[in-house]
Amino acid sequence: MNIKFSDRMGEIKASEIRELLKLTQQPEIISFAGGLPAPELFPIENMEKVASKVIREQGREALQYSTTEGFNPLREVIIEQRLKPVGINASLENIMITSGSQQALEFSAKLFINEGDVILCESPSYLGAINAFKAYKPTFVEIPMDDDGMIIEELEKALKEHKNTKFIYTIPDFQNPTGKTMTIERRKRLAEIGAEYQVPVIEDSPYGELIFDGEKYPTIKSFDKEGFVIQLGTYSKTFCPGLRIGWVCGHKDIIQKYVMIKQGADLQSSTLDQRIAAAYMKEYNLDEHIAKIIEVYKKRRDIMINSMKAYFPKEIKFTNSKGGLFTWVELKEGLDAAEILKEALEEKVAFVPGASFFPNGGHKNYFRLNYSNMPEEKIKEGIERLGKVLSKYY
Amino acid sequence: MNIKFSDRMGEIKASEIRELLKLTQQPEIISFAGGLPAPELFPIENMEKVASKVIREQGREALQYSTTEGFNPLREVIIEQRLKPVGINASLENIMITSGSQQALEFSAKLFINEGDVILCESPSYLGAINAFKAYKPTFVEIPMDDDGMIIEELEKALKEHKNTKFIYTIPDFQNPTGKTMTIERRKRLAEIGAEYQVPVIEDSPYGELIFDGEKYPTIKSFDKEGFVIQLGTYSKTFCPGLRIGWVCGHKDIIQKYVMIKQGADLQSSTLDQRIAAAYMKEYNLDEHIAKIIEVYKKRRDIMINSMKAYFPKEIKFTNSKGGLFTWVELKEGLDAAEILKEALEEKVAFVPGASFFPNGGHKNYFRLNYSNMPEEKIKEGIERLGKVLSKYY
Repeated sequence: MNIKFSDRMGEIKASEIRELLKLTQQPEIISFAGGLPAPELFPIENMEKVASKVIREQGREALQYSTTEGFNPLREVIIEQRLKPVGINASLENIMITSGSQQALEFSAKLFINEGDVILCESPSYLGAINAFKAYKPTFVEIPMDDDGMIIEELEKALKEHKNTKFIYTIPDFQNPTGKTMTIERRKRLAEIGAEYQVPVIEDSPYGELIFDGEKYPTIKSFDKEGFVIQLGTYSKTFCPGLRIGWVCGHKDIIQKYVMIKQGADLQSSTLDQRIAAAYMKEYNLDEHIAKIIEVYKKRRDIMINSMKAYFPKEIKFTNSKGGLFTWVELKEGLDAAEILKEALEEKVAFVPGASFFPNGGHKNYFRLNYSNMPEEKIKEGIERLGKVLSKYY
Repeated sequence: MNIKFSDRMGEIKASEIRELLKLTQQPEIISFAGGLPAPELFPIENMEKVASKVIREQGREALQYSTTEGFNPLREVIIEQRLKPVGINASLENIMITSGSQQALEFSAKLFINEGDVILCESPSYLGAINAFKAYKPTFVEIPMDDDGMIIEELEKALKEHKNTKFIYTIPDFQNPTGKTMTIERRKRLAEIGAEYQVPVIEDSPYGELIFDGEKYPTIKSFDKEGFVIQLGTYSKTFCPGLRIGWVCGHKDIIQKYVMIKQGADLQSSTLDQRIAAAYMKEYNLDEHIAKIIEVYKKRRDIMINSMKAYFPKEIKFTNSKGGLFTWVELKEGLDAAEILKEALEEKVAFVPGASFFPNGGHKNYFRLNYSNMPEEKIKEGIERLGKVLSKYY
């Protein structure tokens, strides 16, 4: 068979994480690879009640086609419960429901990128975003980070150099993969820079509510005066990822464009899931649920960090994340985390090698660890096994 | 605000149908515009039972992330119940779950089309497909139809002329918008042509099971020997569109590419909806449910056709569809259905003007009527009102 695919298919590769997920479904593997929430925390009983009620009382609407923008009561509840508390004043015209944040990322590239246009992003950045963007053949310019997030001076330098920059992509809270958080001053400055350079800032906030230590920082969007910040949110990390519900929040003229893209892409997200989510948010208190998640993840983070201190060679650096799902490990130069993974898998422990988080390659001496999806005793056990593998290299 | 969008946004317009749906949500309007199933037929009681059971018994998995390809038991049940009976032998590697057929259409363009590549399609064709394809800037070459569907001689002529043809798009059963059905001989020939010219044939089959008169015709895919036919299916017209569950079935090498695209696009379709659908299909008999839908729609089709015969000017031509959701109306040359719609809306009756179904424009003297979503008395009343409006022009 000789079928001609589009040129962009040369850019699209199967995600290493998704492929790994398959491998790591073997129950004997201790996997720190995915970014999965802890399923034992899902509010199963309440979800059963809510789903029953929605189908019984709103079945004709809940099982039918609906509008592309999303179910209005869900949009309202997101505005009220998730956006207002983080300083974002939005109305219905500023928000569209997406099938998870991943869809909002793909739509963002479709909306802004012509082949060769520049995307500025943190170095490293979320690999799912990188993969989604790559299909549109952008040029990635990576902005270095320090412990306070993306370095703003480097960002401005890049903006001056690359006039065809179409957007700045950032994950300011407990970044994937590094676990780092951007300071308030930089957030403020980033919102100003968007307006100054007339370049949209895409603020991806899947982990912003999972705070273990310290206060919630204001969102970049809360400093946005002229509509250049687009905020992406999701229920995947604070509620149930299986429902695939995220949102994009921005200036109404931009949201209208996202709506047109979504019409062509899939007409709308699941009516049933949207109505179940809306009913749940009205009936129950998501903040209380998030508090439970935080309690569990914080313990797991502590155990992972303490185990790393105990079992990893002392020279290895890692982030002590103050929230979110991940810690990021730096090995000495010259080591290849992908090679080490093979050995780790023999010891039945998995992680994601860091190279895929750098859109332009290199940086093989990093890897990402997830602590949200494994029970405490397995975290300790897994890090001990991994420590043994790593010790061979130090 | 001065934001630079991508060039493709010039091609993407809000769908007239979706915009109309908003208008026609006013309860006093008799709308023949959408393509909505009859919500009074949704299996609400059984869906409540199934959803409760799925969340109660499989909550940890049903609310969690899952694989991009889709939930295996759902893929198996589609293979067994929906593909095998229409002559398609598929295994798991040949099928991926999509968020409705619309998503499979968008993915198809992303998979095959570089700017300027040729898509061959029926003239007219489904406007949701046209809009999804347009974002990838193809050249549409429209193939004329007669009462037996796409004219194969014209198709071959176009294939010889356009060497950069990337795929042939067809809706062989009760086509949207014309209601016409392709003959068995043409289906067979089309499968052969795909292999001869090494050009994929995308067979879009949302209505193929809604048969009022006569037998089910074999699918084009059932004649496919070399893997050039890609079949798109959906539960939206035979079960519940709100769940957004469709599928793409094809050669495993092609399905692998669709999987890569879906990873970037939205990771996966709703785990919950997939598990609910799979459980429903095992617990209940979808064919019995489809038989009920057919009974209701056939009556509605009869009433619409009989009312058109009674109330429309005699010179107006229309399709007596043998299945599906639509009939297609041809006015005399020089009339503009979009203009007539404005008058019709004053009389509180709506339809979709035909021009949007022709990717290269023209053909203003057509419109599409849907009969699945209105109760019988309203169909009669609506066609009578429409007849009055049309009579002014004859």
